[in-house]
This record gives sequence, structure tokens and C-alpha cells, in this order.
Amino acid sequence: MTVTETLATTDLEFARQLGQQLRVDSIRCSTAAGSGHPTSSMSAADLIAVLIARYLQYDWAKPKDPNNDHLIYSKGHASPLCYAMFKAAGAITDAEMMTFRKFGSRLQGHPTPVIPWVDVATGSLGQGLPISVGVALAGKNLDKLPYHVWTLCGDSELAEGSIWEAFDKAGHYQLSNLTAILDINRLGQRGETEYGWTLDVYRRRVEAFGCFPIVIDGHDVTAIDRAYGQALSATGKPTVIIAKTIKGKGFSEIENKEGWHGKTLPPDMAERAIKELGGIRHLKVKTAKPEATPRGPKRIEVAPVVTLPVYKPEDKVATRKAYGDALLALGAIPDVVAMDGEVSNSTHADEFAKAYPDRFFEMWIAEQQLVATAVGMSVRGYKPFASTFAAFFSRAYDFIRMAGISEANIRLVGSHAGVEIGQDGPSQMALEDLAMLRAVHGSTVLYPCDANQTAKLVAEMADRDGIVYMRTTRAATPVVYGAGEEFPIGGSRVLREGDDLAVVAAGITLHESLKAAEQLADEGIEARVIDLYSVKPVDAETLRAAAEATGGRILTVEDHWPEGGIGDAVLEALSDGETPARVVRLAVREMPGSGKPAELLAAAGIDAEHIAAAARSLVGSTVSA
Amino acid sequence: MTVTETLATTDLEFARQLGQQLRVDSIRCSTAAGSGHPTSSMSAADLIAVLIARYLQYDWAKPKDPNNDHLIYSKGHASPLCYAMFKAAGAITDAEMMTFRKFGSRLQGHPTPVIPWVDVATGSLGQGLPISVGVALAGKNLDKLPYHVWTLCGDSELAEGSIWEAFDKAGHYQLSNLTAILDINRLGQRGETEYGWTLDVYRRRVEAFGCFPIVIDGHDVTAIDRAYGQALSATGKPTVIIAKTIKGKGFSEIENKEGWHGKTLPPDMAERAIKELGGIRHLKVKTAKPEATPRGPKRIEVAPVVTLPVYKPEDKVATRKAYGDALLALGAIPDVVAMDGEVSNSTHADEFAKAYPDRFFEMWIAEQQLVATAVGMSVRGYKPFASTFAAFFSRAYDFIRMAGISEANIRLVGSHAGVEIGQDGPSQMALEDLAMLRAVHGSTVLYPCDANQTAKLVAEMADRDGIVYMRTTRAATPVVYGAGEEFPIGGSRVLREGDDLAVVAAGITLHESLKAAEQLADEGIEARVIDLYSVKPVDAETLRAAAEATGGRILTVEDHWPEGGIGDAVLEALSDGETPARVVRLAVREMPGSGKPAELLAAAGIDAEHIAAAARSLVGSTVSA
Repeated sequence: MTVTETLATTDLEFARQLGQQLRVDSIRCSTAAGSGHPTSSMSAADLIAVLIARYLQYDWAKPKDPNNDHLIYSKGHASPLCYAMFKAAGAITDAEMMTFRKFGSRLQGHPTPVIPWVDVATGSLGQGLPISVGVALAGKNLDKLPYHVWTLCGDSELAEGSIWEAFDKAGHYQLSNLTAILDINRLGQRGETEYGWTLDVYRRRVEAFGCFPIVIDGHDVTAIDRAYGQALSATGKPTVIIAKTIKGKGFSEIENKEGWHGKTLPPDMAERAIKELGGIRHLKVKTAKPEATPRGPKRIEVAPVVTLPVYKPEDKVATRKAYGDALLALGAIPDVVAMDGEVSNSTHADEFAKAYPDRFFEMWIAEQQLVATAVGMSVRGYKPFASTFAAFFSRAYDFIRMAGISEANIRLVGSHAGVEIGQDGPSQMALEDLAMLRAVHGSTVLYPCDANQTAKLVAEMADRDGIVYMRTTRAATPVVYGAGEEFPIGGSRVLREGDDLAVVAAGITLHESLKAAEQLADEGIEARVIDLYSVKPVDAETLRAAAEATGGRILTVEDHWPEGGIGDAVLEALSDGETPARVVRLAVREMPGSGKPAELLAAAGIDAEHIAAAARSLVGSTVSA
Repeated sequence: MTVTETLATTDLEFARQLGQQLRVDSIRCSTAAGSGHPTSSMSAADLIAVLIARYLQYDWAKPKDPNNDHLIYSKGHASPLCYAMFKAAGAITDAEMMTFRKFGSRLQGHPTPVIPWVDVATGSLGQGLPISVGVALAGKNLDKLPYHVWTLCGDSELAEGSIWEAFDKAGHYQLSNLTAILDINRLGQRGETEYGWTLDVYRRRVEAFGCFPIVIDGHDVTAIDRAYGQALSATGKPTVIIAKTIKGKGFSEIENKEGWHGKTLPPDMAERAIKELGGIRHLKVKTAKPEATPRGPKRIEVAPVVTLPVYKPEDKVATRKAYGDALLALGAIPDVVAMDGEVSNSTHADEFAKAYPDRFFEMWIAEQQLVATAVGMSVRGYKPFASTFAAFFSRAYDFIRMAGISEANIRLVGSHAGVEIGQDGPSQMALEDLAMLRAVHGSTVLYPCDANQTAKLVAEMADRDGIVYMRTTRAATPVVYGAGEEFPIGGSRVLREGDDLAVVAAGITLHESLKAAEQLADEGIEARVIDLYSVKPVDAETLRAAAEATGGRILTVEDHWPEGGIGDAVLEALSDGETPARVVRLAVREMPGSGKPAELLAAAGIDAEHIAAAARSLVGSTVSA
């Protein structure tokens, strides 16, 4: 390494040598692991080498420095390159690098934020760029800091619609602080990509989406260097560097050859490759630290005063309206930000948008980018609330799943749930959202029934970590709780006492259950009514006590398919069998059509009449306990 | 109506009058319903009028005629226009049109296939066009029939990434039999769209995505007419008509005004509007019937001979490999088609692709389009099998949800499920797919554990209606069943008898459960092992019998989050409380990392050791029955 020892680490020749080192290390760690993507790392090695040696501003010792640039591997399978980069930066040792993909190592198959220098989990393609848009949007519009967001994308992932949602929003919001680096190595997992090396296809698309394309040879360090320089000179647009690269670059036996995706080199081959690449190096790159710019508009240090809305018992208020009101109140907290999918006048996020236009982000009808923006803002420490119709979060389920792996702290609020929405029909009815959100690691699922409860839960959401979901209702419903009451997450409320059976409901069906309980009381049947506003975590204790008191007669009622929602949450809570129970689950079992909300609730068998009927039948039965 | 009575229905003046009628009827039916989207219908009325009067080839009396064109309302909220069109075509009466959105009417808020002239449910924006791509692909590559696919899109939905997946695939596959009609009325739900009337943005994007754009005034019937003519003259590309339109066109009080999305006109206003639009008309359009072209390559009439693969008991075979083998065998059925998201060498769909390249469709990494293509082919009566990693179906959940509403018959096969995949880490591990797919109306969820079982189930999938999902496993696992055995959907298999407890598992955990049962037997504990290969519908009878026989001691084991999967399916089956049970649910409860499959199964507490330990503890306990 005598040549490089005499080089300043900012010299291009150093970057060239560094690129070779990154290749060698990508091979070494993946061959040691016996799995991984060395060839996909080798194609992008020069792009990363020039970046970290000459452009990236990052203090590896202080990954939380707010002035740091962000570098996101949207092509998460280039993890060997990412970890080789950490070694070159001195963030990890060579020995740790060699633990790649081993059990217990933080250097997993795809990067996750268990590593301090990783912002978000990637590996589901087409997500790193949309999240980068969220980070860049925070940088430009909220932090107002000069950090730059660099995102390495593969070419296969350019087929994902989410990538074009991201380019679109990057262009629309003129995110000149974002540079996407497209590693066009021509080969996907199972052969040539859709457009191979036809770089012009990408150039024209990127340009049409409002971004500034630069086409280069991705192995020409001078060209790379010039492109990054251009990217940093304000164009008023995001830059997209379209780099023609060679998969497996640097090792002649596999360069540009099919059949080498996600395959490691056998030891003998690795040895030849390392030799051809100039042997093992231990160059240390001195990444420039960010200038200690003062943070933009200083955040308010005094504790913000949040005055939640209050609703009178005689009022009828939709929980989605209460969400809007409460979000507006939370606006007093400077870290609270909101985004919506062009339905803010329905979700009522528009109240916040009008009061705090600088902290509201319109994502139009692009739900993947909606959730990705929330994740990006979570990376920057904000408290994002993202809203759309509950049904349309299903569009972003992969992003929500990955946000769980990313340890992101995001709040999702879905309005217009269930058949209760009425005339619009099944396409607009969320009937699977509780199942979908419960099955996310560490998630919280809330489903309030009245306005005061909603306001309190929205306030709790602001302080809750993880993926926190709230389901709201379209129609105005009676206010059943006083404004002073508390609703801890994980709790429930017994709204009516009774020992003949327990009716467990939440949201719209809670009101139907209360009506049913009135009817039943007239007939001498005392129904306990439990408001399960916290669907996850669930209040197992109260449910078990109810089973105990009622001889195990439990009736669950939900405006949701029978699978995965409230009924299942209750069954899980009672699964230990300590208190045997017969759980009758009322849910939507046939495909609904259009009609008035009351007609559809009746047709689905989840209105007061059907609840009362099911209760009568359940009370008449014996639980074989 | 004296003017129009003298007009041939193919005259442009007739089309102009028809457009006015469609507007009037859109107002009439939505005002009567008190809900709906008249203004979004009025903007597209001239586009539809010219189409049905002069270009569409469709026999309204024979909606199943294979030669019919397809007309899909991707902007499903223009349902008043759609139903007004049905009236003009004589498909429904004026009286039925006026039942719009009423309970029991087939004319729902958004079109669904309960109506014979509707191919698929729309209303979740950005889906009609991707599905149209699937239909057009079938027309060009499978049916080889001259029918044309016409798709009406709104401008707000152009923000959805799925639209760009669709344009991309339409361009890539040169679907000149597809015409997208973009109704650019400038106004979305809550104000101006992202690009308003900047038509050039759309033109450049569409062109960059390989389609042929035509920009017109969407109220100039001559221009519309010319554009449709151009669309039908083979350009070798799909045509995209970018029509500048006015929301609420024809009624001066609301034309191009904000605040009128999804709002109906009050009766007095409707009266003024109808007057301004020239009053109520009852023009009948004579849509041209398709020429009775002989169907393309005649489908084979003799019953196809499917020879399923068989595997020997001593073999170790991955269920994903068995899927590939079985799909190849099903290739003998000419209606079976397959598509994959650029991972066919992992899902093993590549075996089919090689043998039947004409019936295999590469969708690259665009899972929304992957599922949409399957739905489109289902519209044409094919039997599609779509495959990718199980985790990545979460990208298309909204499409799967809508496919359920569309009554589509599609088969989804997800490989690489759970922590068992090992080194690649959590981004590639499906841990929510069972929950996600169970919560789809009328779905079937299968999870085989061995190769012979997989082959049999794949064959059953071909004949199964609805959304049919199969989860396959990455690793080669022992063949536990003979090749002659049958596995009816809805059934289960007791692989080992025992009355001390029942262990319920499927897929990878079934093998761990068998190992555990061996260990337990050595200790004198007899575990009944149930293979729950049909997770939905579930074999409740066998589960109840197991609870009965084991004193209610049930242990479920799944490579999935604890919510919504096998554990919940079992709890549901036992929910009637007839046989009290203590159900201990082993599942993945902490975020996994990378490692060897065995290490990760152990870390998640779902390997043989943990199963045995949980079994011991369960057997030691008493169920308070």
C-alpha cells in the first residue's frame, strides 16, 4: 500500500484504491458468511468510495449529530459494501466486518438500525428512496439545515412504483438536498433487468419527473467526482446520477455475467478475486465532518401547552373530527408534523394543515410515499401523524412492515373504517386494517368510540414509540365519556356492568352494543359492555374478569372481517383457558354493498338488533366449564 | 329531442347530445342518492359519449362475449357516469339507474362485478389501469383477439406509483390494444391536483414510459373522435389520451370550482343544472357489436393430462421447489398462466417460464402490477399463478383486498416465509402474510410442509375460486407424505397420535413439531401432531377432537408474528367453548436478525427444543375445564 500511503485521502487515486478495498472486503465478508451479495456491492464500490472520501459530511463518532449527511442504501442487499464502508471509515473493525450475517452480529443480511450509522431498514426494494425524500423534506422545510441526503439505488428497484412516487415528490418539492445514485449494473436477480444498460430510458423518466439527471460511467472516479460536485451545486432540483456500472466489477471471471446475483464466491475464487483486485487493504478514509452549523429555527425549549378539545355529553361528533381537532391542539408541540394522502378534508388533518402549513405535507394519492415520508421524518426525530382512509393504508403495508423493522416512530390514522361508511361501497371500507396493523411488530392499535376518548388517545399517540395506528369513524356518534376521563393505552373501559354476558366492542359497534344492552336490560338480561379502545396491547385482565363473572359468555362485535381483529384479540387474551369461555364473534362475513350506514350494519349482523339477538342466544346456552 | 332523432347515432352531434344526457343522468341519480360524484362524472362525459357511440365494440346483451372490448373505470368514483352509460346503452332502465347507491341495488357507490358489464371493482385509485394492462396482455399474447381495452383514469390517481408500474409494463409489452383516457379535470378531492392543468408534465412522463400520448381538449368531440381513431391505428404502443377537462362541465354554477368533489347537487340546483344541460333525454346509443372473429388459437378441448411430480420419502425437497415442479405439471392445462416479480429462480416459477414462455409474464420488481396482471388475466378466464417472496405480497395488499371485491380468481404463491430463511434478515421474512391473507374476503390460505403435499395442493389451487394463497418454505425439508395421499382444502392431517397434548403446526414448524414429539415420546409424553396445511378454511372438527382428547392442551407453533396466523385460526376454531382449551401459542415475538435457519428458529422459540419445553410445561398444567 505504499502508493496510497503517500496520497491524501481526498485524492482521486485514493478513492480508486478505496473502491478496490471495498470490493475486496465485500468479497471477504460474504465468502466468510457463505451468503450475501458481493457482485451487487462491487458494481457500486467506486460510487461509494468517491462519496465517502470526498463528499459525504459525516461524523462517524457522532451518528446522532443533526448536521450529519444521510446515506441510505435503498439497495439494501449491497450490505457487504455498506459494512466494508463502515470499516474503511473506522466505524467498525475488520474483525467485526467479518461477522457479517452471523447469528448475533449487528451486521445483518440487509442493514437495519440496530447499527448506529443506519437510518432505516432496507432490503424490501424501492423503499430507501421514498424514505430519503422524507428525510430531505425535513432537512429543507423543517430543520433548515444544510445536510445532504445521498441514496444508493439499484436498477431492479426502479420497476417499483414507489420509486416514481419518490421521484415525483422529490421533484415537486424541489429537494435539491437529495441525490439519488442509480447503480445501473444491468443484471437483476434472474437475468437482465427490464432496460439493461439503456440509460436513456432512465434519464428521460427522471427528467420528466422533475429531477436533474446526470449520466456517467460509474467506474470513472473523475466522472463520479464531477457528478457529486454538480449535485451539490444548487440546481433547485434533486439530482439523479445514472451510473453505468458492471456487476462484479474488478474480477474478470464474473464481471457482467449472469448467475452471480446473491451468490458468494467460493474460497478459491475469492482468493483469485482478491489478488486481481490488488490484495487486502486497510485504507482508512477520513470522511469530512459536517460544519457545526447552528440548528435552523431553534426549537422551543419551554414545555408546550397542549389544550385538547373537549366535547359535551349531548354532542354528536365523529371521531375523525375529534382526531383533526386533537391534532390541531398537538400542533403546540413543535416536533409534531402531519401528512395526508389528498383526503385531509375527510380525515380532518386539514385543521392542522391550515394552522401549521409549514409542518403539513401533502402527499397526494401516493400512500407508499405518505408512510415513507412519516418514516423519514421519524429519522429526523419528528413526531409524524400520517392520515388517509383506513382502507388505503393497505396500499402501504410493506412500508408499514418495514417501518416496524426500522424501529420508526410513526403514527397512522385511518378514517372511514368498515361498512359504517355506507354508500361509497366496499372499495372504501377498511375491513382488514385491524388485522394488518396488529400483525406488525411492536405496533399499537387504537379504536376510539367517542370524541373525548379520541382526543386523549391522540395525545398519547404523540408520546408512543413504534407503529401506532388509530382507526376513526366517518359518522358523528354520541359523546359517551366526560372530557376529564383518561384512557391509557393497553386499557379498556367497562361502560356498563352486568354478569349475564359481556359484549366487547370498540368504535362504531360500541354504540350499537350500548343500545343492545338497553334492550336486553328491559328483558332482564344484564350485559356487561366493554369498550376495547386499545385493541393492541389488549387489556387481558379485564377480559378475563368478564369471562369469570359472566360464566364465560363473551360476545365480540366488530366492523371488520372475522379474522385478525377484535374477536381474535379477545380470544388471544383468553387463550390460557384459565377461564373457559364461549366467544361468539359478530363481524362482517359477507361482501357488503352500498346503502345507509344503519342498513349496512344490520346487513352485516353487527347492529344493536343482531347484538341483542346473539346475546339472547348466548345467555340461553351453557358454557361447558 | 327532435334534433337528435334525425341524427345517426354515430354522428358527432349525437355524441355531443349524448354527453349532455350522461351529465344530466349523473346529476339525477346522485342527487336522488344524496351521495356520489357528479362533477367527476361530468368532466368525462364527452369522452365516454364519443367512445360508446363511435368506437367501443361491445355487445351489451352478451357481456361474456370474448370478442367484446373492455371498458374499465379506473376512476371508479365516476360511477354515476358509468351507470348513465349503461342506461344510454339500454343495459339498464332509467328506473334502475335511479337506484344508485341504495341498499340492495347492484349500482353501488363504486362499480363492482356484481354488475355483468363491470370487469373489476374499482374505487381504490390507481388499480383500474394496472388491471387493464393484465387484460390487454391477455388479449395480445394469449387470446390473440382484436378486442381493445379502454381505461378511464382520473388525474389524482396519477400520483399512485402503481399507475407508473402500469404505464411501464404497457410500454414494455407494446400493448397497442390498450388506450388510457386521462380525465384531467384539475381538481382533486381537496383542491387542485399536484399538476393541475399542466398537461405537459403528463405528456412527458407518459412518453418517457413508452406510451404514445395525445393531448386534447376533452370536451371537443371532434378532437376526442380523432384521438380514438389514432389510438386504434396501430402505433405499436399503448395510447394515452391526455384530455383537458372541466370538473362539473356543463353547469356554470359549479364548473371548475373547488369544494364540489364527491358532493351532490341539492334538488333545486340539480333542476337548474338539468335545465342548463338541455333537460332530461333518453337517447339510446347503438354501440357497435364486436365482429365475430374466430377465437385465436383454439383452446384444446380434450381434458389435459396433468402428471404431478412425486417425491420419495427419503428425499429432502423445498416446498418452493415442489411448487415450481407442480406448476410446470399444471402447464398441461392451457388456461394456466404464471407471472413473477423478478425472482422466478427463487420461487421456482422459472420451470414454468422455460417450458411455457408464451404463458409466463415477467413483471419485474413491481408487485402491484404482478397482482394486477393476475386479476386482469382472471377477467379473461385464465388461471393465473403469481409468485414472489411472501414478504413482498405486502406491497400489493390493496390490490389483493380489491381482488377479493372483484371476485377475481387468482392464485398467489409466496416463498421464503418466516425466520427460517436465515441469513437474509427480517426484511425478507414474511411474518404477517398469514394474517394479511386470512383477512381477505373468501380467501384460501395454504401452508404445506412437504413436497408431495405441495404438489397436491397446487393442483387443487388451479380449481379453487377466489384469492388462493400458498406459503412455501426456502429450505429443503423431509418428505413426510406418500405421493398418493390426498390433502383436501379445509382439511388437516394428524401425523402422530397422542392424547397428552396436541401440537398444531404447518410448514417448517411441522417438522420441528415432529422432532419434538419424538423427544417427548422418549419421556413418556404422547403428543398428537396436527398438520394444519389449510390455515383457511380451517379443519375445526379435527381441532375440537384434539382438544377433547387431550384435556384441552393445545400448543400452536408458527413461523409468523403471534397475531392473525395459525394460533388465531385455532383459537377461532375452538371459540365456541364446547371443549375448553388452554392454547399456548409459540410464534415469533422478538424482531429477528440474521443467522442460520436453525439458530433463528431457536431464537424465536419455535424449534423442536422449545416446542418440547412448552409441551412439558403445558402437560404439567391443568386446564380448568
